[in-house]
Amino acid sequence: MEFNEETIKSQRIYKGNITEYWVEEVLLPNGKKANRELVKHAGAVAIMPFTADGKMIFVKQFRKAIEKTILEIPAGMIDKTDDNPIETGKRELEEETGFQAKVFELETSFYTSPGFSNEFLYIYRAEELTRVDQPLAQDEDEFLELVTLSFEEAWVAYEKKLIIDSKTVFALFYWKMKKEMEQKNR
Amino acid sequence: MEFNEETIKSQRIYKGNITEYWVEEVLLPNGKKANRELVKHAGAVAIMPFTADGKMIFVKQFRKAIEKTILEIPAGMIDKTDDNPIETGKRELEEETGFQAKVFELETSFYTSPGFSNEFLYIYRAEELTRVDQPLAQDEDEFLELVTLSFEEAWVAYEKKLIIDSKTVFALFYWKMKKEMEQKNR
Repeated sequence: MEFNEETIKSQRIYKGNITEYWVEEVLLPNGKKANRELVKHAGAVAIMPFTADGKMIFVKQFRKAIEKTILEIPAGMIDKTDDNPIETGKRELEEETGFQAKVFELETSFYTSPGFSNEFLYIYRAEELTRVDQPLAQDEDEFLELVTLSFEEAWVAYEKKLIIDSKTVFALFYWKMKKEMEQKNR
Repeated sequence: MEFNEETIKSQRIYKGNITEYWVEEVLLPNGKKANRELVKHAGAVAIMPFTADGKMIFVKQFRKAIEKTILEIPAGMIDKTDDNPIETGKRELEEETGFQAKVFELETSFYTSPGFSNEFLYIYRAEELTRVDQPLAQDEDEFLELVTLSFEEAWVAYEKKLIIDSKTVFALFYWKMKKEMEQKNR
């Protein structure tokens, strides 16, 4: 079965700094019409930075959209000039944490909410971290605090709802799965 | 450290069927001003429906925002009249798949993309499914096809990028973790 929706009309309602809001009129498979709201976004890259002693580095930041300060894995938007998401990931890791990583492996990627947005997110695992002497500057309007947590501490933060966004919840379950597999293969 | 951003101005740009688009001017911790784009959303509930023979039920649907037909776990938006997300989950499972479930357990919940949206998503595990004789009707503008996949088939769909949204990628890694734990405890 094909359910494609043909665009009849397309209107950009607003062009913001990180999103564009569009409303499209579409033709449904049953011949009826419907409106679709679309939030266009350049996409983003997140990094799960594992330290040598098996902890993970998180950033604490305030998120206006939810009016909460939460713990997230480092992440940032893909820039027009980035050739590859790994480039974005390396830059954001350095900007937000002051670390570079020798190991940089793509672990998954997904649309965060395809019901209304085209935001696509890549998640990398970073290991063998080294501190940079003069790291890239943070974005002007970003205020971050670094928080390094053990596996157990991260789950406490999750229970307290400080870890509560899709990429960081993914990171936690990924971490748990990785540990289960290591224990099994011991 | 507190990084709260005080709202100076708040303007609703558009009120759609499933989202509202707002632009807010905020005061940053350093005294400067910035604009924040916010997509307001009522929240949603997704269900991981496990069949008696250990498969999972997915829905295939076209997503205008990404111009792709993909496989997702069943999900739907929270309705104003819903008292509890479990109510939303039970309704959406029945509407989208024609099944009810005896077991309905919350496995996680997260903001899909707190950088610009307040959409909050609950994910339930559903088991002991029974087919409903006259299930609730699907939404008028939804066109779905049911696809039941084994664990291995689901990973093939993931490799083919047919499973590619946050909630369904979470479901897959959750499923893998669950299997690892079962094998370990055998």
